[in-house]
Amino acid sequence: MFPAIIARVSPRHFVKYTFVKVDPAWRRLEAQRREQDKLEFIAACEDFADGHLLQSFSLVGTRGDAELMLLAEAENLDRIHEFHVVLAQSGLMKWSEISHSFLGMRKGSEYSEDDRSVPRGFRGKYVFVYPFVKSREWYALPAQERWRIMQGHIEVGREYPGVDNHTTYSFGLDDQEFVVAFDTDDVGTFLDLVQRLRTTEASRFTVRDTPSFTCLAMSLERALNALDGEPVALAAGL
Amino acid sequence: MFPAIIARVSPRHFVKYTFVKVDPAWRRLEAQRREQDKLEFIAACEDFADGHLLQSFSLVGTRGDAELMLLAEAENLDRIHEFHVVLAQSGLMKWSEISHSFLGMRKGSEYSEDDRSVPRGFRGKYVFVYPFVKSREWYALPAQERWRIMQGHIEVGREYPGVDNHTTYSFGLDDQEFVVAFDTDDVGTFLDLVQRLRTTEASRFTVRDTPSFTCLAMSLERALNALDGEPVALAAGL
Amino acid sequence: MFPAIIARVSPRHFVKYTFVKVDPAWRRLEAQRREQDKLEFIAACEDFADGHLLQSFSLVGTRGDAELMLLAEAENLDRIHEFHVVLAQSGLMKWSEISHSFLGMRKGSEYSEDDRSVPRGFRGKYVFVYPFVKSREWYALPAQERWRIMQGHIEVGREYPGVDNHTTYSFGLDDQEFVVAFDTDDVGTFLDLVQRLRTTEASRFTVRDTPSFTCLAMSLERALNALDGEPVALAAGL
Amino acid sequence: MFPAIIARVSPRHFVKYTFVKVDPAWRRLEAQRREQDKLEFIAACEDFADGHLLQSFSLVGTRGDAELMLLAEAENLDRIHEFHVVLAQSGLMKWSEISHSFLGMRKGSEYSEDDRSVPRGFRGKYVFVYPFVKSREWYALPAQERWRIMQGHIEVGREYPGVDNHTTYSFGLDDQEFVVAFDTDDVGTFLDLVQRLRTTEASRFTVRDTPSFTCLAMSLERALNALDGEPVALAAGL
Amino acid sequence: MFPAIIARVSPRHFVKYTFVKVDPAWRRLEAQRREQDKLEFIAACEDFADGHLLQSFSLVGTRGDAELMLLAEAENLDRIHEFHVVLAQSGLMKWSEISHSFLGMRKGSEYSEDDRSVPRGFRGKYVFVYPFVKSREWYALPAQERWRIMQGHIEVGREYPGVDNHTTYSFGLDDQEFVVAFDTDDVGTFLDLVQRLRTTEASRFTVRDTPSFTCLAMSLERALNALDGEPVALAAGL
Repeated sequence: MFPAIIARVSPRHFVKYTFVKVDPAWRRLEAQRREQDKLEFIAACEDFADGHLLQSFSLVGTRGDAELMLLAEAENLDRIHEFHVVLAQSGLMKWSEISHSFLGMRKGSEYSEDDRSVPRGFRGKYVFVYPFVKSREWYALPAQERWRIMQGHIEVGREYPGVDNHTTYSFGLDDQEFVVAFDTDDVGTFLDLVQRLRTTEASRFTVRDTPSFTCLAMSLERALNALDGEPVALAAGL
Repeated sequence: MFPAIIARVSPRHFVKYTFVKVDPAWRRLEAQRREQDKLEFIAACEDFADGHLLQSFSLVGTRGDAELMLLAEAENLDRIHEFHVVLAQSGLMKWSEISHSFLGMRKGSEYSEDDRSVPRGFRGKYVFVYPFVKSREWYALPAQERWRIMQGHIEVGREYPGVDNHTTYSFGLDDQEFVVAFDTDDVGTFLDLVQRLRTTEASRFTVRDTPSFTCLAMSLERALNALDGEPVALAAGL
Repeated sequence: MFPAIIARVSPRHFVKYTFVKVDPAWRRLEAQRREQDKLEFIAACEDFADGHLLQSFSLVGTRGDAELMLLAEAENLDRIHEFHVVLAQSGLMKWSEISHSFLGMRKGSEYSEDDRSVPRGFRGKYVFVYPFVKSREWYALPAQERWRIMQGHIEVGREYPGVDNHTTYSFGLDDQEFVVAFDTDDVGTFLDLVQRLRTTEASRFTVRDTPSFTCLAMSLERALNALDGEPVALAAGL
Repeated sequence: MFPAIIARVSPRHFVKYTFVKVDPAWRRLEAQRREQDKLEFIAACEDFADGHLLQSFSLVGTRGDAELMLLAEAENLDRIHEFHVVLAQSGLMKWSEISHSFLGMRKGSEYSEDDRSVPRGFRGKYVFVYPFVKSREWYALPAQERWRIMQGHIEVGREYPGVDNHTTYSFGLDDQEFVVAFDTDDVGTFLDLVQRLRTTEASRFTVRDTPSFTCLAMSLERALNALDGEPVALAAGL
Repeated sequence: MFPAIIARVSPRHFVKYTFVKVDPAWRRLEAQRREQDKLEFIAACEDFADGHLLQSFSLVGTRGDAELMLLAEAENLDRIHEFHVVLAQSGLMKWSEISHSFLGMRKGSEYSEDDRSVPRGFRGKYVFVYPFVKSREWYALPAQERWRIMQGHIEVGREYPGVDNHTTYSFGLDDQEFVVAFDTDDVGTFLDLVQRLRTTEASRFTVRDTPSFTCLAMSLERALNALDGEPVALAAGL
């Protein structure tokens, strides 16, 4: 069964997490300049969102190395590339760095029946994202043994139905093997789940699961307003 | 007992440690500009402190990568977010970076009867904070075994009644599992306690306990004055 | 056989991967200034490309720490050096950092009959590059044992004929032992291959295989346009 | 004996190592501006040195991440804090970063009769400083076993009487457990000692002993002159 | 024999490797300004080279984190310090960072008869430098066992007579134990040697051997011209 699932391929979508860190000097610019910079950022996003999944999140208050996160999904890498070319031309990105970036692909899991190949946006108020790498000892286990261990892991997750998993795959594409993401409306329950998962057998094979980002889901307009506290007037909201 | 305690949830508060590193160029600005920048920072804090726990600390003289630390506690993430949105609009934050940031939640310990879910400020003159990660070997131990080992750890702590623990939980929310914090009026006793704890059985399961911050508790007015040596005139102190 | 292959030397070419990160401030310059800066960059590349392999790639949309990658191949280090001297004089490099750099040499593999000593450009639409270090346990194995293990690895690779390997050697020349590179037109197939290779015996001896770069092959003109979204008028394309 | 010694507390002094990295742009300022900046730095130091141990060192020529080091000793943290508040107001610190910082306390060793609780300045021409962390396996050993192992370590040190140890304690106060410092007039002998100590049993329990700083002891005036090569006229030397 | 050799001391010279990273903004300055900046750098070097070994290398084209490397040798640390004080006053260093720095001392090896205590310049066209740290397991071996293992290592090196070793010692002086350096006229042969050495028994005790720098030996004039492509008129070449 294992080889068969591995061989199952596309059409699989690309998922890109882009974390933006704004230069503090940008907040010292004139309000009018900042509004224009944000409007250009919105225009770039609206262009891409017409036909593609695009979601925005704020990290103001949860971390110090990013203030905004965009989740962009497309059918190929070229479309992801084009979106970021346009985004880079916005005034806001001329004062920003992409402090973290995770590129993944949707792919069905060999341990689960869930269909993970289709685009699926986050619905929860809070999204948690981290890059994930397993030990080589894990991959040296027989496929059946890995399957058995993962069932215990998945069963714990099922006890927390309010937390939804959105893992994508990055093998060879980026510095991690998986981009693990969860969304929920209840942060405390998510914290309890992660603490509980530490005791599963699968947990022992984790090599890296940081940095771990807590993101607040909100409209792009609100996420941009959170950068400098000033509202932008939108022709069309996202 | 273990699953029962894990399942015990909210209302649990969020606790945010925000470490601020001021650009040296800010200290080259005119005194009047700097005073205005600090007054805006104070205003943001006063707004939040009306109804929430907010404490301020100086790190001038104890480290090189942060000068100020704010501890903010709120009933949900959105209130923490809103506070930092307002804070970022202050003149001071337009010249600063958040060089370190720890997000935690209050949660009762499975190893102690102490109620840790309610807001509780630091009372000591000195506060010590560090992110904490335990090994996966720890979590693979049976709950009873972990309970036994932690009792030895806790008993050592009880021999130092002048040192108070304020640990919060970060599983899945941030890069660490716990934000460990202590306060005391006697730094030497705290150092002795930490050295003593190295010999406990629990200590062997530590993976990460740095960076470790020594913070001096003081009014926000004093902590801000420590940035450039100049006093601000406050309408109302925090 | 092992010493004999090791002793096989030149003429072996040098291969240089140069990843360019443009200062966001550059995108705030006048369009005319930026066009001139890019034309100078193109001129430097055209000069080198006359007689040498030079390929260009964009990383806009795949990472945050580089926007452009150049692959330059030459018969000696001095020619690689001269190219970068000229390149550094271009306006674009006066606003850029080389955020990552990998220097390698072509060399025949002791595990394969493939001739890897001659210049060979990437043909695929997508190129994946990462620095690679194996454990000292690997090198402590007998040559025959390493040969056996690598055959299993190579056989898996052969099941994915659409993915082509371009590994070069860096022992003592740079921070890694190998610069591993693949090209393909099908990203999903490459991801499947890398995930599959995790289960080979050879995989257990990996110490480092990050950062891992996903690069989009394109003309230098297009790769430069991706930096600021504005086309340059070329006298001669590469 | 072990618990008894651990319980032995204050009055213990604080020792602060502050490493200063000057912005290259400062050296581009007018000579008069630089002289004023240095005079303010001197004034801050003279104020503290009146009643406290303060020593200055240059790192120009030994490292790239710091040019100046100040060793400040005081009876409590508040006095260390006040000193750095005043220091930060000097013109020089408005163009500098504290690139490394180590906070320690004097404390008697459980392995030696030497009294380490009293202030004691460096007398050698060269000072070597590094943060030190031991493995948790070390602390899991019985006290008597640690005592035995340390005697072997100390005996090697006694064969090099020209090298003097100034270790202080940082458990819980900073990122390291100890700030290890040595002074000597003969660098080569110190190097021989450190190489020799690698073969002691104690050495196997080292987890971290870097970064390691070679510092040249000199008057504050000379250490500041080394920053830009220009002498300052002092009313009173330190 | 081992203690006897360890006890063998000076007169041993200091060897300093200084890697310079020029701010890209410097290349945007007027040509006349840049020429003056380079001439001041040359003057500082000529002053030191009168009586001391000083060699210059370019890293343009081989790495991204340094463009120039100076090797300076002197009879004591104070002379190394003085040289860098003067060097820092040059216009070029006012726009540069010392991105890497290795401080070592000459010292005879306990494993070889070669006299390594006297100054000896690099003669090859290419120089390779890296900081080197061995495991504590290595130092726990009996001296005779280490001697045996090193003979195997040295014998492999002898099969490559075109590669010359220039290792110096840094125990306690810097972050590494050794600064390993080789020179050769044939890069490929050096690469083959390093790959071959991976299979020696000694290799298993390596903890760190990066970053690894490939440097092109050239006159100071040429190395400086490589920074901005423009020649300086020298009164006297080095």
